Amino acid sequence: MRLYDFGPAANSRRVRIFLSEKGIEIPIVELNVREDAQFKEPFTTMNPFHCVPFLELDDGTVIAESISICRYLEELHPEPSLFGRNAAQRATIDMWNRRVELDGFMPALHASRNDIPLFKGRVVPGTRTDLEQLPEMVQRGKEMLDIFLARLDPQLANNAFIADANISIADITCYFVINMANHFEMNIKSKYPNIFRWHKEFSTRPSTEA
Amino acid sequence: MRLYDFGPAANSRRVRIFLSEKGIEIPIVELNVREDAQFKEPFTTMNPFHCVPFLELDDGTVIAESISICRYLEELHPEPSLFGRNAAQRATIDMWNRRVELDGFMPALHASRNDIPLFKGRVVPGTRTDLEQLPEMVQRGKEMLDIFLARLDPQLANNAFIADANISIADITCYFVINMANHFEMNIKSKYPNIFRWHKEFSTRPSTEA
Repeated sequence: MRLYDFGPAANSRRVRIFLSEKGIEIPIVELNVREDAQFKEPFTTMNPFHCVPFLELDDGTVIAESISICRYLEELHPEPSLFGRNAAQRATIDMWNRRVELDGFMPALHASRNDIPLFKGRVVPGTRTDLEQLPEMVQRGKEMLDIFLARLDPQLANNAFIADANISIADITCYFVINMANHFEMNIKSKYPNIFRWHKEFSTRPSTEA
Repeated sequence: MRLYDFGPAANSRRVRIFLSEKGIEIPIVELNVREDAQFKEPFTTMNPFHCVPFLELDDGTVIAESISICRYLEELHPEPSLFGRNAAQRATIDMWNRRVELDGFMPALHASRNDIPLFKGRVVPGTRTDLEQLPEMVQRGKEMLDIFLARLDPQLANNAFIADANISIADITCYFVINMANHFEMNIKSKYPNIFRWHKEFSTRPSTEA
């Protein structure tokens, strides 16, 4: 089993934090996606969606998509559980991970891609394209992110973690949402005190150095 | 167990197609979200993210998010499997469902929300908001959807279904992406013949009437 990875990419870091929290070690092959390594063979055939990270199994099967990789590894290494230990707990964690990802991560991702000069010509993940960076995507992404933060903050008022009494995959996803929100200076500290507390605590975990 | 649902909503239809394919029957409570039923008690407390459908378990636990509901029901009723029968198959189906959802469904959803007059004041799912419908969100959503379709079509050249030899949750998700693409007149028939064939076949399934 091998993980194809690019150090600084948020989705690569998501999986590495997961691996660190689980105590799993996998051989890593570094692909420099800023130099378009993922568009060259054999990588373009292995993952025609051209995103990192992706996991190659011993039989050649390729699992891309960060959450799908984590879900697969959780099945092989159930403890410590980050996706839940029974059907209802798994569904609750999946629900929160989806809320965080669809309502927070995706708007923030597209806002970043349309804002940061580094992403010119790459506004859609895994593509080389001549689509322009649109300021309206940044504006709307920030507005949607703010709606999400206002909904998340009450959930963290009485809960140490987002979906469960313990850390779960939803917390790992959300860590990157708040990092992006901080890039956009969204006043987490003054507007969303519970999220601020949670993010501060999460940032002290050794796994975030992974 | 009860499912809170709104007949015409795409996410409600996703879950009902899943139930029909699985042969599961659950009592359904209809909430008219166009008349804001989801913002009234007890529903606003049950699901503070104000989206349908959501599933209430007998102990009061509420599972929102269509895929999380389906995942929970798959655990209770494993056959016929729509999420996969072993770790690698489950990861592959999850990967394809995510690609379809993140790269296809989400851009199409936001394009629709910013385009269709019915969604004025509701451009962000589950909210009442004064955010305007932005034509740039429609334009970029359609551009992103077209990138996704061009990547999906080759996958369907040699496969009857999207992620597996049999129907999976990824096909159900994608059915609605193509419905939205047809709303935007994206020339599926001439540009993406494999997707056209797949969608035509899927549309004949009795479950799509659910």
